Amino acid sequence: MANPKVVLQHLDELRALTADEQGAQRIAWSPVWLKARAWFEEKLRALPVEHHYDAAGNHWITLAGESEKALVIGSHLDSVPNGGWLDGCLGILAGLEVLTSLAKEHSGSPPCTVRLVDWTDEEGARFGRSLFGSSAFAGSHTIEADRVRTDREGTTLEAVLQNCGIDVNKIGEAGREQQNIAAYLELHIEQGPILEKVGKPLAVVQGTKGVERWAVTFHGQEAHSGSTPMEVRRDALAAAAKLALEIRPIARKHPQSVATMGSLKTFPGIVTAVVGRCETTLDMRDLDASVLAGMLHEAREASERFAKEERCSVEWSKIWSIEPIPFHPELIKLCEQAIIETAGVSELLPSGPLHDAAEVARIGIPTVMMFVQSLNGLSHNCSEDTRREHIEQAVLALNRLAEKTIRWILQHEPA
Amino acid sequence: MANPKVVLQHLDELRALTADEQGAQRIAWSPVWLKARAWFEEKLRALPVEHHYDAAGNHWITLAGESEKALVIGSHLDSVPNGGWLDGCLGILAGLEVLTSLAKEHSGSPPCTVRLVDWTDEEGARFGRSLFGSSAFAGSHTIEADRVRTDREGTTLEAVLQNCGIDVNKIGEAGREQQNIAAYLELHIEQGPILEKVGKPLAVVQGTKGVERWAVTFHGQEAHSGSTPMEVRRDALAAAAKLALEIRPIARKHPQSVATMGSLKTFPGIVTAVVGRCETTLDMRDLDASVLAGMLHEAREASERFAKEERCSVEWSKIWSIEPIPFHPELIKLCEQAIIETAGVSELLPSGPLHDAAEVARIGIPTVMMFVQSLNGLSHNCSEDTRREHIEQAVLALNRLAEKTIRWILQHEPA
Repeated sequence: MANPKVVLQHLDELRALTADEQGAQRIAWSPVWLKARAWFEEKLRALPVEHHYDAAGNHWITLAGESEKALVIGSHLDSVPNGGWLDGCLGILAGLEVLTSLAKEHSGSPPCTVRLVDWTDEEGARFGRSLFGSSAFAGSHTIEADRVRTDREGTTLEAVLQNCGIDVNKIGEAGREQQNIAAYLELHIEQGPILEKVGKPLAVVQGTKGVERWAVTFHGQEAHSGSTPMEVRRDALAAAAKLALEIRPIARKHPQSVATMGSLKTFPGIVTAVVGRCETTLDMRDLDASVLAGMLHEAREASERFAKEERCSVEWSKIWSIEPIPFHPELIKLCEQAIIETAGVSELLPSGPLHDAAEVARIGIPTVMMFVQSLNGLSHNCSEDTRREHIEQAVLALNRLAEKTIRWILQHEPA
Repeated sequence: MANPKVVLQHLDELRALTADEQGAQRIAWSPVWLKARAWFEEKLRALPVEHHYDAAGNHWITLAGESEKALVIGSHLDSVPNGGWLDGCLGILAGLEVLTSLAKEHSGSPPCTVRLVDWTDEEGARFGRSLFGSSAFAGSHTIEADRVRTDREGTTLEAVLQNCGIDVNKIGEAGREQQNIAAYLELHIEQGPILEKVGKPLAVVQGTKGVERWAVTFHGQEAHSGSTPMEVRRDALAAAAKLALEIRPIARKHPQSVATMGSLKTFPGIVTAVVGRCETTLDMRDLDASVLAGMLHEAREASERFAKEERCSVEWSKIWSIEPIPFHPELIKLCEQAIIETAGVSELLPSGPLHDAAEVARIGIPTVMMFVQSLNGLSHNCSEDTRREHIEQAVLALNRLAEKTIRWILQHEPA
């Protein structure tokens, strides 16, 4: 059985090596991230594994088994700037310990192949493109878009990749790693408050929510704040403020829906002028595609009504969207069993945030994720935390899930 | 009597000299502004006047009269970037024609002295400090604040003044020009829609509204837009949106009040995060100090209620304020008579925007302003416009008002 204390020790080591007072600084492509990867390679030395980086920079560690069919455990070592000590790396270090335990128990050769993958640039913190490595693996990336991406300083993604020995034109070749993968598991912190609220350490993730992400811009009339009577104003901020408030009852009609106005910009945006143009962003998520489509429709209608009331106009422009991605029903059951055997209780949750697991699941690989409780629902900052005893339970449950999934893979192997 | 056609001709000339396709470019301290001032000096050549620039760069043109008591007509030649063809310069060019006419009618020496003043940097477009010249004249500027002002490129106001021959440490000496001033008149475009709405060309301005200008910041909790359920959010934008809407009924309780949220900024301001901090600005104006204080109180209470509802906190920080400045009751009457004699009808309006006249009035000099109708209530952009026949009426009414005010000054001169 895996030793959870080793995982805690590794997490502390990695934090000491790659975090400062503001938090983790393992931003993908940065020297700190490369240092984390080099540290991780050192941990592989004692193991009977082959490892290599694919065309998108994903790091694959393979413990060859009697069958070529492979169970993959994955997550990511990269972090956002000023990130937490668990987001991403918990899944990698727990996976490493499970791999180590399986190698020991089966004398270096388990009944099927077991692989660990450290996906490249899950966070997209520098180039605004999350799930970089896993989408290259899944073939759902767009090479034309990736080629022209730049960071805030204007450095191209292409140049940064080249520095790390990656040719942006070839990242699709990471798809070759799909061969023989029979199942994919990912352990992650919840990044939300639900498990803490219901008082449970672990949850099975039923799938990732679909996302509708739009830029919504209201056009009114810039006017002098001193000389323009209230009743003749065409205030674009007023129309946007109504929408900011209205998306909340729209989302609350459905128990798991969320709707967020994360950015609002005013133009000219000066103290002495009525707002002539107001640019906002809307992000809506649900696990049910028809619920999500309904919310989008309602928000759009509301925005048009508010624009009319304020004698403004409104314009919607799609930023990005993804359909809901349900995980594999049989793996969901196995995950629930592993959690109950470990912690006595389980919970079933959708994932609001996206994860590399969504990219793997969308190409038809049986996939499931496990969440471990977050404290105060915080993530993407240095206040992110999880109780150490919950981390230990997560490692044990992931080990049990891996064993169950290996048996499931062997049962499903063609004779 | 003044010849309004000459004023229109001068306005067209100045536009041809100092505007491009985007509008007027007479930003104070710029080469185009200096060109406008040089062009204006040329127009003085044929007149029996003395002229000079004071310590703050205000341009004083003096037609000496039999009495040293002086009537002053003032406005400003500077404009905002991409400004209109009338804002500021109409008052100067109409004043020049009135001065010319008075010089002719009184054979070079009217019964009291008549002066024209072109205030420096009324707009504050480059350094964010409006009413520069008139506040130096009135002694209501703060030399310490002026000394450290910089433009967007980091150039100091001090360096720019020096280039124009002005010592920032001495601008208060402009106060010497106050001597013997008995009354001050200013003609300006309305910059609002009221005169057009009531179908009148001209209005008497009863005073400038008091202004309360505050930064209002809501603090909530930044959170992941995908994983944070609606009911646990502490959304700073929601609290700010409620305030953006609530200031409108607060202002509408009073016929002449205005309240504007001109700027709203979201932090971190990204599509995937609930807004943790929301910075807004509030600008409230009314001619009645107690109404204004009441509005401020109501807005503040509402903001605290909304912060509580959204489990946020709110913080108010004063940007700037000025008390309401009523104009002189006897000059208001003279102005109304002059308008009725010219146009048959008059209107009484407060001024929402500030004007140099407010600086003059606050030091006790009897002051009144006259507004001429704006089309569509637009100003501070190149769509600003006024009918040419209304401009002609404004020049004639200002001429009448100047004559009435000269008689009023003489009546009030100590025997």
